[in-house]
Amino acid sequence: MPLVVKKFGGTSVGNIERIREVARLIARARDKGERIVVVVSAMAGETDRLLKLAYQVSPSPVEREVDLLLSSGEIVSSALVAIALNDLGYPAESFTGRQVGIVTDSAYTRARIRRINTTRILQALDEGKIAVVAGFQGIDEQENVTTLGRGGSDTTAVALAAALEADICEIYTDVDGVYTSDPNVVSQARRISKISYDEMLEMASLGAKVLQTRSVEVAKIYEVPLLVKSTFKEGGGTLVVKEVPELEKVVVSGVTYDKNQARITVTQVPDRPGIAAHLFGKVSDANIVVDMIVQNVGEHGLTDISFTVSRTDGKKAFSLVKAAAESIGAGEVKLDENIAKVSIVGAAMQSHAGVATKMFATLARENINIIMISTSEIKISCVVEEKYAELATRVLHEAFELDREPEV
Amino acid sequence: MPLVVKKFGGTSVGNIERIREVARLIARARDKGERIVVVVSAMAGETDRLLKLAYQVSPSPVEREVDLLLSSGEIVSSALVAIALNDLGYPAESFTGRQVGIVTDSAYTRARIRRINTTRILQALDEGKIAVVAGFQGIDEQENVTTLGRGGSDTTAVALAAALEADICEIYTDVDGVYTSDPNVVSQARRISKISYDEMLEMASLGAKVLQTRSVEVAKIYEVPLLVKSTFKEGGGTLVVKEVPELEKVVVSGVTYDKNQARITVTQVPDRPGIAAHLFGKVSDANIVVDMIVQNVGEHGLTDISFTVSRTDGKKAFSLVKAAAESIGAGEVKLDENIAKVSIVGAAMQSHAGVATKMFATLARENINIIMISTSEIKISCVVEEKYAELATRVLHEAFELDREPEV
Repeated sequence: MPLVVKKFGGTSVGNIERIREVARLIARARDKGERIVVVVSAMAGETDRLLKLAYQVSPSPVEREVDLLLSSGEIVSSALVAIALNDLGYPAESFTGRQVGIVTDSAYTRARIRRINTTRILQALDEGKIAVVAGFQGIDEQENVTTLGRGGSDTTAVALAAALEADICEIYTDVDGVYTSDPNVVSQARRISKISYDEMLEMASLGAKVLQTRSVEVAKIYEVPLLVKSTFKEGGGTLVVKEVPELEKVVVSGVTYDKNQARITVTQVPDRPGIAAHLFGKVSDANIVVDMIVQNVGEHGLTDISFTVSRTDGKKAFSLVKAAAESIGAGEVKLDENIAKVSIVGAAMQSHAGVATKMFATLARENINIIMISTSEIKISCVVEEKYAELATRVLHEAFELDREPEV
Repeated sequence: MPLVVKKFGGTSVGNIERIREVARLIARARDKGERIVVVVSAMAGETDRLLKLAYQVSPSPVEREVDLLLSSGEIVSSALVAIALNDLGYPAESFTGRQVGIVTDSAYTRARIRRINTTRILQALDEGKIAVVAGFQGIDEQENVTTLGRGGSDTTAVALAAALEADICEIYTDVDGVYTSDPNVVSQARRISKISYDEMLEMASLGAKVLQTRSVEVAKIYEVPLLVKSTFKEGGGTLVVKEVPELEKVVVSGVTYDKNQARITVTQVPDRPGIAAHLFGKVSDANIVVDMIVQNVGEHGLTDISFTVSRTDGKKAFSLVKAAAESIGAGEVKLDENIAKVSIVGAAMQSHAGVATKMFATLARENINIIMISTSEIKISCVVEEKYAELATRVLHEAFELDREPEV
C-alpha cells in the first residue's frame, strides 16, 4: 500500500464545511488503499489573529512565547480534522509537533528541523489509523515549542515524507498547481504538469507563493516527489520531481515577478580588498538577505556598488550601509524602492544560446529599461521599474510561447 | 522567599486589558519577593468556542481529539500572560501541561493527575523567572494530551502547589471570596474570611461554584492553604485551611442551593438483598453519580426507593432504572425534575443539637415541604420543590444569623 503524506493549507481547513470536505477527500484516498499521513496548517486567519493578540499584549512579544502561542492554531485544526475523519468512520489520531517527534533547533519563529522520530506515527499507521499532524511546529532539544516560519507546514509535510520514505507528498492548496506565470497578470498562463526541484525552487523564491522555498529544498535533498494540487477540484496538479527529461527541450518554463524589492546604491566606493565585505557584513549581521549585487569597475580606483534586498528590509539596510559607507569614505548612498524583479526560469537555460538575448530584446521592444541583471544556471532575472512589472511578465510569457503545452 | 501558586480563571484573562492587569498584579507580588508559579485558564468563552467547533464537525467528537483541541485554549492564555510579564520587564516562561510534567490517567475529558515532575518549573524559578502554566491539561503515560474536566485549572494549581510544597495557593476569580450564601439570592450574604477544607468541599459540591470540588479534595489531602480572592479588587478573600478553631462556635457557616437536581422514585420494590445493588448498578455503570438515597420500609415485603441525580442525567437514569425495575418486578418509576436541594454547611454540626430541628422548623414556618433529607457530619440537605429554593435559602440564612460576623 502506498504511503502518502497529504498537506492541507489554511484555506483548505478554513471553516467547518471545508474541514469536512477535506476529511471526505482523505477518506476517498483511504478507500483506494493509501496509508495516509495528513499535515494541516492553522485555519485561515487564525495565525494572524493569534499574532495580533501577542502584539496587543506587547509591542515586542518574546519569541519563545509567540511560538507556543502560534503552535495552538495547527493543534486546533489537526484535532478538528481527526474528529471529522472519525465521524466518517475512519479511525484517525492527531499529533502535535512534539508527539510526532519533530525536533528542531532553538531558533524561535524560524526553527529548522533536525530530526524526526517516526516511531509513534508508524505505530498509528500500523494500527490502520490515519495520522493527522499539526504542521508548522516542533520542539527543540529542551522541549520548548518552536515554529518553522510562515508556510512551515509545507516543510513539515516534506520532512515527514522524507523521514517516512513516503511514496509521494501531496500539497493541497487553493490553486490547482504551479503556473507558467501569475494568472492574475498573464491571462494565457498555463499550468505546468511537471517541473524539476531546481526550477520550482526558483519559481518559489521568485514570488510564486505556492510552496515554501525551504520545503522544496528538503524535497530536493531527499528526492521526495511533490504533487501540488487543488483541494476543491479533482485532477490537475503539478508534479515536482528530480528529473524532467522532456524539459530539456522546453528551456523556459515560467515567468515570475517580485515587487518586494528595494535597491541600494553606494557610489564612489574605494576599490580596495575587504571593502565589499565591510559593507555587506553590516547588512548580513542584521539578518538581512542580500539578493543581487552589481559592481561597476570605475575610474580612479573608485567603484559603484548596487544591491537589492527585500523591500521590507530596505530602510534598515539603507541606514546600516549609510553608516558603513561614511566610515570607509565612500560617496552617496541611495535607496530605490520603486523596483521589481522579473525572471524567466527554465532547466538547462545556460546551455541554450539566445535565451538571455531574447529576454533583453523583448523588454527593449517595450521600452522597459533594465536596471540590474543576474543569472544562474536555471534563471535570468532583470530588475526593472516597478510600474513595468506586469507588462514585462506578460510580454516575456508571450515571447517564450509559454501558453503552449511543451512538446514531449 | 515564599513560593506562591496563583491561579487566574477565564474572566481574569478574558481580554487583552485584563491579561495586562493580571501581569501587573503578578509583578507587584514579585516585587514583594514572592517566587511565583502562575496557572491560567483559557480566555473566557474560548473553551466553549472550541467545543462548538468540535460539535459542528461531529455530533459525537472523539474524546482524545476534544482534549487536544481544548488544551489549546490554555496554551494561548499562558503564552499571552508570559508575553505580558516579559513586556513589563519580568522574565517569565510559559509551560504546557506536558512541559510541566503533569502526568494523568487516560480518562479523556476528566483525567486525574497521577504525578508531577517539578524539575523544569523549579529550574525556571531558580533562574529568577516567573513560571506560567497552562491549566486544565496534562499528558497520559503514552503522551496523549488529556484534560481535567471543567474547572480543572483549579486542580492544576492546587496539585502544583502540593508538588512544589508551595506556601500558599491563591485562586484569583471574579468574586472576592466564598460567601455564606449566593449574594444574588440573599442580599445579607457575608464573605467568609476562613473556612475548613471539609466545609469548602460541601460548599463547592453543593453549588457554590467558586472552586472545582476536586481541587479542594487535593488541597485537603496535601494540606495546601488556599486563598480565594478577587483579581480586580485588593484585599478580601477567603482562606481555606485545615483547622479553623474559631468555627467550633459558629456551627452553621453557609447556606447553599442547587437546582441541578432530579429525583427518581421506584415504588413497590421487592425488599430482597441485592435489589438495590441491581437498580443502582445500572445507573453507576453509565457513569451517573447518585446523590441522596431514601428507602422507606414498606408493607408486604415491598418498599419505595427514591434517589437524586443531577438534572442533566435525569432522563438517562430514568430509562435505565425503568428497565431494571421491570426486570425485578417492581412497581412504578417516576421522574421529578422540579426539585432543588437546599443545604446548610458547618463544622461539628452533628455535635450541636438542635441545628437540624431549627432547619426543619424554619422551612415549615414558610410552608415549604421537605421531600427528602440527607445529613453528614458537616451538612444537612433538604430536597424541596424547585420554586422554593431561593426562599428557603434566604430564610435559613436569616435563621442562622449568617449575616453577622462570627465571634472569635
